Amino acid sequence: MSVTSDTHPVLVLNAEDNVAVALAPLAPGDDLGKGQGKVTQPVPAGHKVSRTPISAGTNVLKYGQIIGRATEDIPAGAHVHSHNLGMGDHKQSHALATELPQIVPSESADQFMGYHRPSGRVGTRNYIGILTSVNCAGSVAKFVAEVAEKTELLKEFGNVDGIIPITHGSGCGMSSKGEGYETLFRTLTGYAQNPNFGAILMIGLGCEVMQISTLVGHEGIRDETRFRFMTIQQSGGTRATVEAAQPILRELAVEANKAQRAPAPASALTVGLQCGGSDGLSGITANPALGVASDLLVAQGGTSILSETSEIYGAEHLLTSRAATPDIAAALLDRIAWWEDYTARNFGEMDNNPSPGNKRGGLTTILEKSLGAVAKAGAAPMNGVFRYAEPIDRPGFVFMDSPGYDPCSVTGQVASGANLIVFTTGRGSASGYKPTPCIKLASNSDMYQRMEEDMDVNCGDIVTGTTLEAKGQEIYRLMLEIASGRPSKSEMLGYGAVEFVPWQIGAVM
Amino acid sequence: MSVTSDTHPVLVLNAEDNVAVALAPLAPGDDLGKGQGKVTQPVPAGHKVSRTPISAGTNVLKYGQIIGRATEDIPAGAHVHSHNLGMGDHKQSHALATELPQIVPSESADQFMGYHRPSGRVGTRNYIGILTSVNCAGSVAKFVAEVAEKTELLKEFGNVDGIIPITHGSGCGMSSKGEGYETLFRTLTGYAQNPNFGAILMIGLGCEVMQISTLVGHEGIRDETRFRFMTIQQSGGTRATVEAAQPILRELAVEANKAQRAPAPASALTVGLQCGGSDGLSGITANPALGVASDLLVAQGGTSILSETSEIYGAEHLLTSRAATPDIAAALLDRIAWWEDYTARNFGEMDNNPSPGNKRGGLTTILEKSLGAVAKAGAAPMNGVFRYAEPIDRPGFVFMDSPGYDPCSVTGQVASGANLIVFTTGRGSASGYKPTPCIKLASNSDMYQRMEEDMDVNCGDIVTGTTLEAKGQEIYRLMLEIASGRPSKSEMLGYGAVEFVPWQIGAVM
Ligand SMILES: [Ca+2]
Ligand SMILES: [Ca+2]
Ligand SMILES: [Ca+2]
Ligand SMILES: [Ca+2]
Ligand SMILES: [Ca+2]
Repeated sequence: MSVTSDTHPVLVLNAEDNVAVALAPLAPGDDLGKGQGKVTQPVPAGHKVSRTPISAGTNVLKYGQIIGRATEDIPAGAHVHSHNLGMGDHKQSHALATELPQIVPSESADQFMGYHRPSGRVGTRNYIGILTSVNCAGSVAKFVAEVAEKTELLKEFGNVDGIIPITHGSGCGMSSKGEGYETLFRTLTGYAQNPNFGAILMIGLGCEVMQISTLVGHEGIRDETRFRFMTIQQSGGTRATVEAAQPILRELAVEANKAQRAPAPASALTVGLQCGGSDGLSGITANPALGVASDLLVAQGGTSILSETSEIYGAEHLLTSRAATPDIAAALLDRIAWWEDYTARNFGEMDNNPSPGNKRGGLTTILEKSLGAVAKAGAAPMNGVFRYAEPIDRPGFVFMDSPGYDPCSVTGQVASGANLIVFTTGRGSASGYKPTPCIKLASNSDMYQRMEEDMDVNCGDIVTGTTLEAKGQEIYRLMLEIASGRPSKSEMLGYGAVEFVPWQIGAVM
Repeated sequence: MSVTSDTHPVLVLNAEDNVAVALAPLAPGDDLGKGQGKVTQPVPAGHKVSRTPISAGTNVLKYGQIIGRATEDIPAGAHVHSHNLGMGDHKQSHALATELPQIVPSESADQFMGYHRPSGRVGTRNYIGILTSVNCAGSVAKFVAEVAEKTELLKEFGNVDGIIPITHGSGCGMSSKGEGYETLFRTLTGYAQNPNFGAILMIGLGCEVMQISTLVGHEGIRDETRFRFMTIQQSGGTRATVEAAQPILRELAVEANKAQRAPAPASALTVGLQCGGSDGLSGITANPALGVASDLLVAQGGTSILSETSEIYGAEHLLTSRAATPDIAAALLDRIAWWEDYTARNFGEMDNNPSPGNKRGGLTTILEKSLGAVAKAGAAPMNGVFRYAEPIDRPGFVFMDSPGYDPCSVTGQVASGANLIVFTTGRGSASGYKPTPCIKLASNSDMYQRMEEDMDVNCGDIVTGTTLEAKGQEIYRLMLEIASGRPSKSEMLGYGAVEFVPWQIGAVM
C-alpha cells in the first residue's frame, strides 16, 4: 500500500490495480503521482480514479481482485463509479482449504478481568436480562424494568450492571416450524445463555407461537437460581405481572450480585467483527486494522466471528481457500447457495447491498464492498461455519451466517455467544448492543473528529502513516480493557435498548 | 343462537351445525340439551362437541358454514378438535357483489371531541411523534424523548399528550425497491400523516436505505411548522443530535399546543377492527358485538377497517359477496392470491395460523377462526380494499390487507389513518398502539375478571343473556368517549412504546 502524492494523496492498494483510491477530493489537473498522468475529473475522497485507460468490458481491479467490469471505455484519470462500472459476471474458482495460513500461538498469555460463569464461559458484563418471547410482552418487560429503576432495586447489588428489557417485533404471526421459527428460537435461547447476563427473567404473553414452555424446555436454559419465567396471561394481566416480577428480580439480583470480576485468559473472548455504514476507506484502514487485532486474539486461543454473508458475497473464494478443512469451505458455499435462493424467491438480488451512504462513500459494487469487509477477518484459517445464532463451540476465526444489516447481524453474534463486538464504520454508525459492549472504529479522521463521542478508535490516521500493525495492537489492547469493564463510547451514551433485532425469515402471518 | 342447557350450557350457532360450542367445561354424561343425547368425553369450555355422529370425510359445520372435515368417524357427544377435524378442501364460490346489504344512515348525527387538523382529518389524540427511518436511529429517538422528559419540555404545553419515540427493527439491510421497501415507505409516511400526531420530528442515521430525503419528498409529509427532520451523521453524532433536537421539539410543541378539542362528527372516526389471542368465544361474543358497533359507525358515515388477511382466509366469500362493486371484490381475491404465493415461496401454508393459545381455546382450523374473525365487520357493504398502510380515502366498511399478527396489523391500520383501534381478545392480549388509543373487548367473563385492569369491555355476558345489539351500542358509545379523550385501559397502563411493527416483507440483507 503506497501513498503516491503528498499534496493530493492517492492510494494504490495493489500494483496490478487499474484504479487508485482518492484519499482527499481530487480536481482536474491533480497529479496521479509517480509519472502516472493527471486527474481529468473531480473525484470525491474515498472514490476511485482510473490509473490507466480501461476499455469497456474489461475487469476493474482493486486489492488485486476483480471488483466489476467497465461498462464503457474509461480514459486514464477518470472517476470510476456506478456510471461506468458494473457487476458483470464474477465466476471465481472456489479453492477449498488449499492455502491454509499459519497463526503462531502467542508466547505471552494475555488476560482480562471477567465474570466466570457456571457454564465455564466468561462474561465481560453482568446484566440481568428481561427477555421476551413475543412483541406482545415487550411493554410489560419495560414496565418491570421501570418499576425496578424507580424503587432502586439494584441499590444494594453493586456488581450488577443493570436490568435490561430485550424487546423485539416477532414471536407470533409466524409458522410454528421451519427456519423462521428455528432462527428466533436459537436467538432467544442464545441470549438466555450469553455469559454477559448474570441472570434472566423471561416474560411471555401466553398465547404466542413462540411458547415459553418450549423455550424453557431447551437444554441448558433451565438454571433455576439464575433463570425464571412468567406469562402475562397466567399472572393475571399487566399490573399483576409487573408486581409479581419484582420479588423475582430481587432473587435474581441476589444471585447475579455474587459474580465478581476475576482474571480470565484472552482465549475466553468471543468477538463479533462488524462493519456498518462503510465508505471507501473502511476496507483500507479500519477493516484491515481490525483484521490484525483478530489475528492477535486468535493467537491467544480466542474466537473471532465474521458474519454479514450478503456483504462477503463475491469474495467467498478468499474464505474457502483458507478454510481449515474442505467441509468447512463447503459449508460456507452451502450458505451462499441458500442466500442466492433466499434473495431470488424474495425478488431481491445479491448486488443491491451497497446502501446510498456506501455509494456516496465511493463503494460501487458488492464485490468491492465484500473485499473490504473480509479484511476484518485478518489472515487466520477459517475454523468453522455456523448458522445464525448457533452456539459457537470452538476457538479461532469462524464464520456465522447473517444478513449485513448491522443490528440483525450483531444480534445473531451475541446469541452465538459473543461477549464483545468490534464495529468499523465510515459514515458513522452510532449503536450499542446490550448486554455486549461494542467498540467503534472510525475509518476516517473527518468522521472521527465530527463524531468523537461515538467513536472509540480513529483508524483514519492509517492514511497518514500509522501502520496497520500498530493500529491492530491498539485495538487488541482496547478489547482487553473494554472486556475488563471500561465502558465503550456507546455504553457511556446509553445505547442498546432497541437494537435487539432477530433475523426475521419467512412470511409474517 | 340458543343456549340449550342451564346447568351445562352448550351453544348451537346455527340449526344446520353438527357441532355445538361448550360454554363451560363438559363432562361425560352431561346433557347436550333438548333430547339430543349425552356428552361422552370431557370437552373444555370454548371447544366443540358433536351433536350427531359425523362420519370420516364429512363436512363439519359451525355458523352454518364449513369449518373442515372429519378425519375419522366421530360419534355424537364427542370432543371435536385437531385430533379428528382437518382442513380438507375448501373450494367456495366467490360471488362478487351479489348480496349488497343496506346500512340505513343514522337519523341522529353523533359527535366526539377531536383535534381538527389542517388536512381536514380529525385526531383523537395530540402527540408529538419522533419517527425513525431506521433501527439505527431508535436509541437517539429515545434519548431525545428522555431529555425532553427530564427537562419537562412539555410543562407549559398542556394540550400535548406526550412525546413518543416510534422505533422499529428495519429501514436498512433491505432492497431499495420493491414491495418490502414500498411497504415500509407507506408505513412511515402514513404515521407522519396520522391525525393523532400534532407534530412530527423524524430522525435518521444518514447512510440507511430508507433515506429521510426520499421520505420528506413524499407528497403531504412536508408541513414545515409541524414536521421537522434531522440525521445523526449530519448533526455530528449522538449527543449533538440529542441537543439540537431540543429547541426543534420546543418549536413543534408550540405548534402542537395550539390544537384544541372541538366537536367533530362521528364520521371523522376511522376505526381499526382487530382480534388477537382469540378463543372459542371470540367469534360468538366479542367479534359480532364489535360488528354491531361497526355498523353503527358506518351508519354515521364513519370508516371501519377489517384486516388480518391470513385470518379471513377461507371465509373471503363472505366478504366478496357483499363488496360494493365487483372490482372491490376482485381486489380482495387478488390479495388472497398474493398471500397464497407469499406463504408458498416462504415455505409456509395458510392453515398454520391458529396459535397454540387459539387451539387451547378451542379453535381447530383457520376456516373456523376466519368465520369468527369476519364477524367483527358487521353487515355493511365492503366499500374498498387497500394495501397495507395505504391511505384510506372513503367512508364505510373497508378492508386493509395485513398479516394477522396483532402489532403488525395495527401498525398498518394506524399508517392507513386509523385514529381509534378496537381489539377483541379471548386469551387476554395486553397491548397499546401510540399514537392511537386501543379499546380492548374481552370475549369471556373469566378472562375479563382475571385481567380487568387490561380490558375495557366484558363481552362474556353475551352468553348469559346480554344481547349483541346492547353490547354493540355499549362499545359504540365507548368509542366516542375514548375518541374524545377518556383514556383506555392500555393507555392508563402506559402501553405503546414497542408495538410499532411495520410489516417486513422480503429478504433481510
Ligand atoms: Ca458490513
Ligand atoms: Ca453491517
Ligand atoms: Ca451494511
Ligand atoms: Ca385475529
Ligand atoms: Ca390478530
